[in-house]
Amino acid sequence: MFLTRTEYDRGVNTFSPEGRLFQVEYAIEAIKLGSTAIGLKTKEGVVLAVEKRITSPLLEPSSVEKIMEIDEHIGCAMSGLIADARTLVEHARVETQNHRFSYGEPMTVESTTQALCDLALRFGEGDEESMSRPFGVSLLIAGHDENGPSLYYTDPSGTFWQCNAKAIGSGSEGADSSLQEQYNKDLTLQEAETVALSILKQVMEEKVTPNNVDIAKVALTFHLYSPSEVEAVISRL
Amino acid sequence: MFLTRTEYDRGVNTFSPEGRLFQVEYAIEAIKLGSTAIGLKTKEGVVLAVEKRITSPLLEPSSVEKIMEIDEHIGCAMSGLIADARTLVEHARVETQNHRFSYGEPMTVESTTQALCDLALRFGEGDEESMSRPFGVSLLIAGHDENGPSLYYTDPSGTFWQCNAKAIGSGSEGADSSLQEQYNKDLTLQEAETVALSILKQVMEEKVTPNNVDIAKVALTFHLYSPSEVEAVISRL
Amino acid sequence: MFLTRTEYDRGVNTFSPEGRLFQVEYAIEAIKLGSTAIGLKTKEGVVLAVEKRITSPLLEPSSVEKIMEIDEHIGCAMSGLIADARTLVEHARVETQNHRFSYGEPMTVESTTQALCDLALRFGEGDEESMSRPFGVSLLIAGHDENGPSLYYTDPSGTFWQCNAKAIGSGSEGADSSLQEQYNKDLTLQEAETVALSILKQVMEEKVTPNNVDIAKVALTFHLYSPSEVEAVISRL
Amino acid sequence: MFLTRTEYDRGVNTFSPEGRLFQVEYAIEAIKLGSTAIGLKTKEGVVLAVEKRITSPLLEPSSVEKIMEIDEHIGCAMSGLIADARTLVEHARVETQNHRFSYGEPMTVESTTQALCDLALRFGEGDEESMSRPFGVSLLIAGHDENGPSLYYTDPSGTFWQCNAKAIGSGSEGADSSLQEQYNKDLTLQEAETVALSILKQVMEEKVTPNNVDIAKVALTFHLYSPSEVEAVISRL
Amino acid sequence: MFLTRTEYDRGVNTFSPEGRLFQVEYAIEAIKLGSTAIGLKTKEGVVLAVEKRITSPLLEPSSVEKIMEIDEHIGCAMSGLIADARTLVEHARVETQNHRFSYGEPMTVESTTQALCDLALRFGEGDEESMSRPFGVSLLIAGHDENGPSLYYTDPSGTFWQCNAKAIGSGSEGADSSLQEQYNKDLTLQEAETVALSILKQVMEEKVTPNNVDIAKVALTFHLYSPSEVEAVISRL
Amino acid sequence: MFLTRTEYDRGVNTFSPEGRLFQVEYAIEAIKLGSTAIGLKTKEGVVLAVEKRITSPLLEPSSVEKIMEIDEHIGCAMSGLIADARTLVEHARVETQNHRFSYGEPMTVESTTQALCDLALRFGEGDEESMSRPFGVSLLIAGHDENGPSLYYTDPSGTFWQCNAKAIGSGSEGADSSLQEQYNKDLTLQEAETVALSILKQVMEEKVTPNNVDIAKVALTFHLYSPSEVEAVISRL
Amino acid sequence: MFLTRTEYDRGVNTFSPEGRLFQVEYAIEAIKLGSTAIGLKTKEGVVLAVEKRITSPLLEPSSVEKIMEIDEHIGCAMSGLIADARTLVEHARVETQNHRFSYGEPMTVESTTQALCDLALRFGEGDEESMSRPFGVSLLIAGHDENGPSLYYTDPSGTFWQCNAKAIGSGSEGADSSLQEQYNKDLTLQEAETVALSILKQVMEEKVTPNNVDIAKVALTFHLYSPSEVEAVISRL
Repeated sequence: MFLTRTEYDRGVNTFSPEGRLFQVEYAIEAIKLGSTAIGLKTKEGVVLAVEKRITSPLLEPSSVEKIMEIDEHIGCAMSGLIADARTLVEHARVETQNHRFSYGEPMTVESTTQALCDLALRFGEGDEESMSRPFGVSLLIAGHDENGPSLYYTDPSGTFWQCNAKAIGSGSEGADSSLQEQYNKDLTLQEAETVALSILKQVMEEKVTPNNVDIAKVALTFHLYSPSEVEAVISRL
Repeated sequence: MFLTRTEYDRGVNTFSPEGRLFQVEYAIEAIKLGSTAIGLKTKEGVVLAVEKRITSPLLEPSSVEKIMEIDEHIGCAMSGLIADARTLVEHARVETQNHRFSYGEPMTVESTTQALCDLALRFGEGDEESMSRPFGVSLLIAGHDENGPSLYYTDPSGTFWQCNAKAIGSGSEGADSSLQEQYNKDLTLQEAETVALSILKQVMEEKVTPNNVDIAKVALTFHLYSPSEVEAVISRL
Repeated sequence: MFLTRTEYDRGVNTFSPEGRLFQVEYAIEAIKLGSTAIGLKTKEGVVLAVEKRITSPLLEPSSVEKIMEIDEHIGCAMSGLIADARTLVEHARVETQNHRFSYGEPMTVESTTQALCDLALRFGEGDEESMSRPFGVSLLIAGHDENGPSLYYTDPSGTFWQCNAKAIGSGSEGADSSLQEQYNKDLTLQEAETVALSILKQVMEEKVTPNNVDIAKVALTFHLYSPSEVEAVISRL
Repeated sequence: MFLTRTEYDRGVNTFSPEGRLFQVEYAIEAIKLGSTAIGLKTKEGVVLAVEKRITSPLLEPSSVEKIMEIDEHIGCAMSGLIADARTLVEHARVETQNHRFSYGEPMTVESTTQALCDLALRFGEGDEESMSRPFGVSLLIAGHDENGPSLYYTDPSGTFWQCNAKAIGSGSEGADSSLQEQYNKDLTLQEAETVALSILKQVMEEKVTPNNVDIAKVALTFHLYSPSEVEAVISRL
Repeated sequence: MFLTRTEYDRGVNTFSPEGRLFQVEYAIEAIKLGSTAIGLKTKEGVVLAVEKRITSPLLEPSSVEKIMEIDEHIGCAMSGLIADARTLVEHARVETQNHRFSYGEPMTVESTTQALCDLALRFGEGDEESMSRPFGVSLLIAGHDENGPSLYYTDPSGTFWQCNAKAIGSGSEGADSSLQEQYNKDLTLQEAETVALSILKQVMEEKVTPNNVDIAKVALTFHLYSPSEVEAVISRL
Repeated sequence: MFLTRTEYDRGVNTFSPEGRLFQVEYAIEAIKLGSTAIGLKTKEGVVLAVEKRITSPLLEPSSVEKIMEIDEHIGCAMSGLIADARTLVEHARVETQNHRFSYGEPMTVESTTQALCDLALRFGEGDEESMSRPFGVSLLIAGHDENGPSLYYTDPSGTFWQCNAKAIGSGSEGADSSLQEQYNKDLTLQEAETVALSILKQVMEEKVTPNNVDIAKVALTFHLYSPSEVEAVISRL
Repeated sequence: MFLTRTEYDRGVNTFSPEGRLFQVEYAIEAIKLGSTAIGLKTKEGVVLAVEKRITSPLLEPSSVEKIMEIDEHIGCAMSGLIADARTLVEHARVETQNHRFSYGEPMTVESTTQALCDLALRFGEGDEESMSRPFGVSLLIAGHDENGPSLYYTDPSGTFWQCNAKAIGSGSEGADSSLQEQYNKDLTLQEAETVALSILKQVMEEKVTPNNVDIAKVALTFHLYSPSEVEAVISRL
């Protein structure tokens, strides 16, 4: 009986009998295979920290980009399929540039996040910009606009939440627990750097070096840390 | 014999031998997994109350929007897939703005509801605005127009009903029973707030706080309660 | 041998080896699940009577529309998927308005019925106005034009018949038998009201009240009965 | 081995390993379920006679149209899916009107038949006018043009033949045998009426009345018999 | 192992593991069910002779067209699905008329045959003129152009060959053997008529009459024999 | 486990789990069923020789074209589906003519080969010129341009190689071995003719005659040998 | 349970329950069947070396192109399906030419690589330039721009990495190990040639000759080594 029913509704973007969207759930599995990324919001700004998996000593660490700038006041960390993330980031860059051109002011962080999620939601629709499958990536979007610093978390279903702190990727479960223990709203930006990196260190299997982590902050504007700036944070652990 | 027949008509939007549309039924299952929302109509206006599931203390409660404004005289509470609800609400916002622009007057609550349901009905049709699957969301649409206050309930099939009171989401069965016992048409708006929140409290597994519920009313215009206004209602329970 | 053949022709709108169109037959099953509706033609005009299933006392009975006006001289009663019926009725309203605009006179009842059925027939064709499945609804179309009163019955295959009296929906079998016994062409409109409601009463499981039935007539023009007018008919039973 | 091959070529409009088109054959099955229709050609004109299945005494017999006019010099009788026949007839009406408008003279019966069959042949092609399945109807097309009277028979494959006499529908086998015995080219039109109706009477399960048969002739122009004209033919049996 | 591979490439127009195109092979089966047709080329012109299966004495033999004119210097005989052949012939007629209009001279027989085969080859391609399956018909194309008389044979794969003599249809195997024995290049046209009809007679199950065979020649121009001309050939057997 | 994976990626133009494209491999099988063709490059020019399978003495041998001219300086021999080869050759003819028209000089042999292969590669893409399956044909493309004589070999995957000598078709395996033994770069064109035909003779099952082989050369320009020129080569064996 | 789920999401470009994209993984298998290619970056420039599989002595070794120029400052080595690589390279050539034309300066190596990967990512999307399956090829892209020499590695998922040294193809596993042992950033270009070729030699099954390897460098500009230049490197081993 059950098998017969299932024959009525097979498709990339359809509900299962229990009301689930399996392609979205499978895409979330893709993210659980990804490297860990952590974001923390402070009153001064937002800190992003990511693990970089350098599978070979011959790879150029700086070419493994897990943190990208969207606009001068917004950046994001990612976990999952990097090629998918690039498409989303490219889309957001065009949206924020268009907004600046049309309105003469930066796009808010929430509108930027919404624009990203609108694209993510429409997978399987067959129109020009959308994909035939969900985007296999989660983002931590850090920004600073007229409402101050903010941190958003998006998943492959096109849903987003505003957070004070969040971890994504293969180590997210342990990292989220640690964040709940260590986070408070009065952390300074520098303290947030230390918290982020110390938690990342716990979930990584190897020694933390400027080669295998990236750190960025959005305090008014986006800034990706240089190797020596990363080294400085490591030395504080 | 039965199996052979089923081979003639598989598709997202097709009838089963018993005359059922399974994708719509599965979408309704998605709503049964959603958080509970309650609406009550009084002579003074309509009250909406929703449960917010804050899965982590690091989430910003205000970013979990389960009640949204459509136009200044219409708002809605939702249960199911939030990203789907956003698409429907965005569509309704455009429709109501166009109506104001074209006719110089607000769109009626029923026309707004009908416009939402027209979009919901056309899933699987392949045209530009529609989805390839049913929208996995139910809405309680509260409004106030020339006919006074009104409350509508929509489901994923694109059908809608006008109600005096209605609950949707995982706790809807128990909440609907309580509503039938406690509702009468002469409730004041303040009494309706209390009824709504006390019923919501019964179906929630945790203590009610301004963080995990949202309340709104449409009395001439839409108003989302501030945390202190919610606190005031809680204190009356 | 039989199984092998069936593999050559699976599709929404294809024939089975016995020359049947299963999706149409399944849509007819959807109507057998619907509420009962009855139509009777008299020399004075046509009477429509429908059962309304009010699943909760909190539903506004008047918002459960099972009888709708198409043009001032045409109305219809429906059984099956209400959202589908709304699409057909909306299509017919546009057609009749266009006809009035183009020709300066009302569209005949038969042409209106044919226009509805043309849309119904083209399911699965992929063009703009048609559906990807048959419309899961039957209509009783009552009208009054230069040829006097007329009553049409449509089914999901896009076929229509002119009738003197007809019942559709879950109680249609018993109601049709009763109609054959009680109908004659010389009934007055008032007698037809009584016959329609008394038969509806037999197939309904609960007491007939102005809340759970609707009555309409097309005597020159369409008129939906007010609760007190319905009450008056009930009192004559 | 055989099963494996069949997996290479499934589709609505594809050949089976034996060189057969099953959807066309299944559509022909649909016609075998239809009511019987008979056509006879005489030197004076063509006679068409059809059985009408009046499933309920409440149906208006005249609304069950099994014989339709195409142009003033062409008419047709049908067996199978009536909604499909209406589409074909509507197409032919447009073609014949266009021909009159463009060339100032009536379209020949053969060209009209060819135009109908061109549409029928292209099922499954996905273009605008064609269907996604074969038309489930056979037609007997009677006409009178510069070549005198003619009778054509069409089937769902889009093939047509010119005939002196032909029966279609559920009783066609027996009726064709009787036609071969009783037909000769020197029948008068009145004799042809009698032959057609007497054969129809044999294959019908109930008494022949003006309510359950229709008769038409094309002698220069198309004429559908009134009930009293049908009664007159019945009385001659 | 074998079964698994076959799952990678199912479609109307795809190769089997052995490099075969089954739909084309199945279409060839359709032709083996067709009536027999024979063509012979002489120095004076080409003769075509076909069997006509008159399934009922009430069919008009002349409406069973198995030989058709393409242009005044080209004709063809066919075996297989007649409706498909009509589409190909209609296409060829348009091509030859266009050629005359554009270049002021008749199209060569080879170019006409190539144009027919181009259409036949593109089945399953989804463009406007092509079919979704192979054309289920073989043609013998007879013509006379600046290169003298010529005879071409086409099959459903869109391949063609030039021949001196060829038989197609259900009796083609036996007829081809007889042709190889009896054909020589110095036959007169009259002798060719006799050879064609005597071979056709061998493979037909009934007596040859002007009603059940058609004969045509292309000697400079196409000419379809009248019944009395056919009778004359029969009398020479 | 293995079976489950394969369900994720069925299609005409998709990879198997082992990284193979089965439709291309099956098309290559089609070529193994084809007649044998041989090409040899000398300093003076290129020789092509093909076997022609004349299945009936009534076929016109010259109408079985297995060697075709593309432009005056390029020709090709083919093995596999002849109708597919015609499409490719026709495409190449248009490309070379366009090149002459646009640039006033002949297209190089490599560019012509690349243009052919671009079309072959895009099967299953759904655009206008491409096929829904791979082209079931291999070509030996012989040409003479500013770089002197050259010989290219193409397969259904859209890949091409430049060769000194190559055989394709059912006898290619044996013929390739013989070519490796007998080929050297200093062969005269006349010696190459003899080598080609003697190897072809080994793999053919019947006596070589001017009727069942074709020979062509491209020495500056393309030339297809007349029967007497073929006879002359045969006599040298 | 597991099998049932998989039925919800079959497609070329969809996630498996474990979050994997099988078509991409299968395409990667295609590359494991390909010939080996090696790239090394030095401060002076980048060296590329590839194995060429010459399956027959009659093939022209220079026509087996495994290293191609993209622009005068960029070249690439490939492993996998050569016809796919040609499409990507052709796309990159157009992009770099357009860039020079629009901006009057060469495109950077990273932008060129990104443009290639954008095309690779969009397989299965149905737009004009993309393929219906992943490109079955990996590239080593060597270039020299304002940032000095750089080496990129791309895979069929549309992802790319910057490397100091990398091997692809069937021998890549062993070659990568050797590269990690022998590579250091201070190698001269000449030393890099020797390292590349000596590692290639280890993974090839036959003797290294100028016929079966190709070497290229990008030191400011792209240069493909002549046979004698290759011979010179071989002699240094």
